[in-house]
Amino acid sequence: MTTQDQDRELLEQIRLLFNDRIPFNKVLGAVIDSLDYDHPKVRFEMRPELVGNFVRGNLHGGVISSVIDVTGGLAAFLGVQKRLSDEPLASKLERFGALGTIDLRVDYLRPGFGQWFEATGYVLRTGNKVAVTRIELHNDEDSLIAVGTGAYVVG
Amino acid sequence: MTTQDQDRELLEQIRLLFNDRIPFNKVLGAVIDSLDYDHPKVRFEMRPELVGNFVRGNLHGGVISSVIDVTGGLAAFLGVQKRLSDEPLASKLERFGALGTIDLRVDYLRPGFGQWFEATGYVLRTGNKVAVTRIELHNDEDSLIAVGTGAYVVG
Amino acid sequence: MTTQDQDRELLEQIRLLFNDRIPFNKVLGAVIDSLDYDHPKVRFEMRPELVGNFVRGNLHGGVISSVIDVTGGLAAFLGVQKRLSDEPLASKLERFGALGTIDLRVDYLRPGFGQWFEATGYVLRTGNKVAVTRIELHNDEDSLIAVGTGAYVVG
Amino acid sequence: MTTQDQDRELLEQIRLLFNDRIPFNKVLGAVIDSLDYDHPKVRFEMRPELVGNFVRGNLHGGVISSVIDVTGGLAAFLGVQKRLSDEPLASKLERFGALGTIDLRVDYLRPGFGQWFEATGYVLRTGNKVAVTRIELHNDEDSLIAVGTGAYVVG
Repeated sequence: MTTQDQDRELLEQIRLLFNDRIPFNKVLGAVIDSLDYDHPKVRFEMRPELVGNFVRGNLHGGVISSVIDVTGGLAAFLGVQKRLSDEPLASKLERFGALGTIDLRVDYLRPGFGQWFEATGYVLRTGNKVAVTRIELHNDEDSLIAVGTGAYVVG
Repeated sequence: MTTQDQDRELLEQIRLLFNDRIPFNKVLGAVIDSLDYDHPKVRFEMRPELVGNFVRGNLHGGVISSVIDVTGGLAAFLGVQKRLSDEPLASKLERFGALGTIDLRVDYLRPGFGQWFEATGYVLRTGNKVAVTRIELHNDEDSLIAVGTGAYVVG
Repeated sequence: MTTQDQDRELLEQIRLLFNDRIPFNKVLGAVIDSLDYDHPKVRFEMRPELVGNFVRGNLHGGVISSVIDVTGGLAAFLGVQKRLSDEPLASKLERFGALGTIDLRVDYLRPGFGQWFEATGYVLRTGNKVAVTRIELHNDEDSLIAVGTGAYVVG
Repeated sequence: MTTQDQDRELLEQIRLLFNDRIPFNKVLGAVIDSLDYDHPKVRFEMRPELVGNFVRGNLHGGVISSVIDVTGGLAAFLGVQKRLSDEPLASKLERFGALGTIDLRVDYLRPGFGQWFEATGYVLRTGNKVAVTRIELHNDEDSLIAVGTGAYVVG
């Protein structure tokens, strides 16, 4: 395979893993919207099960922190891939499985109203062991609902 | 109603709201285990949908942050109740509905393996506007899986 | 005084307070570089006392967190002023004195090397009680040394 | 040297480094009060330079975050030493120099009034690369002024 083919293969595998093989991602309905190395995006639709406040009908805080966490992890993984592109595919995928969140801060800025939501992640720093990423969650009207900052083990 | 009756009534209402009226809590299977004012507890069972890593079978990080968030909110609410016990019941319940997380930090310490998990919250500081709480999540073998610190609007 | 005069007077008073009346700001050598309402800036020079690692000669982590904290507070204060411009000057200044950090997260991205450093703050959300701000600390070569996110009581 | 002698020698060297060779620690007046492996303590006296609010005379938030950071780092270092006791002294000291804060959260609970303050750190988790620690800052009346949680690179 050429490097480009291998990249494409990797991204397809990641998409498959993320969307279909992580059970709680399916509960959230979270799917990869973009695997841009610098600004990956994860999207999900509002559904009645995702509500926190039944009177107001907005997203549960846990849905917000969950999506922020997985988007930050995706950004961390892609950030490392960008630096270490000569690994074989199998070990890259293994690295995705070994990725772990060290800690995460979430700031809840506005109630999560909307028909769908999109989280975008980006890397602040990638090291050999730890990556630090930030994540923004917008609703379908482009209001900033919440932001996060997370540290991830990547090595 | 005596104050004691009112307290009991409040706690029953809170239990009902938390367990049955917050849709995403039902997805998590999170139920109140104790409404002790100083150390409320929330419990949930492992279920296949809550898994993050399908190879290892441990909890998704988002399940962890979700339960930590709601337990911290519960601790914040109860901490305020302890101070403001002469409010009428209706306005206490309204206060529960108005509670909001400002921000939350979660530290993921060990993979979430277990048949059930319990989160315990406690208050670090309660003010008129903001409460700061901490939360610990243990598994059924009493291993500390994750901890959190959150700030909540309570006023 | 016209509103514009009053604004100018307020900003001069804030600058005086920040630079000269807060003892530990003087230890840090932290001075206001810009009172732009949306992106206030605080600047300080490297000095031998501010070093953490005596072998490498970079900034102490505490200098970084200190400057990030005060810059975030400044951004929170100015963000509120932008919304509440019709208060009398005295009560605006009182509000500056009453400002308090609820919590702060700092991410240390790169060692603090440089001859001078500049922190820039901006508001993520301003409410009546709480403001959430972010802060970036760059060195004299425009490298991003550290970032922060803080919640402040403003009411 | 016996292991016990080596331990004593290490702790003396750490104390010397911490108290005398880290310039900004001297500005803070922060000195090691205990090198207990599980609960190291750092102490400092109130001094006029450490004040934030000149009207009220309480500690600057940056003093609080600074002392919390260094105490958390100390706890992280000692936590690793406890696990890796067979390294030679020189490489242990090198490890102390290489220690770095990844991120830190500080919660400011009460104004910093007092004649002296003591911070105590403890480890939540020690890994080969990353340690997570918590820190509590009390004043001379044993009031809890602030708490922190930090992640440190230890590898």
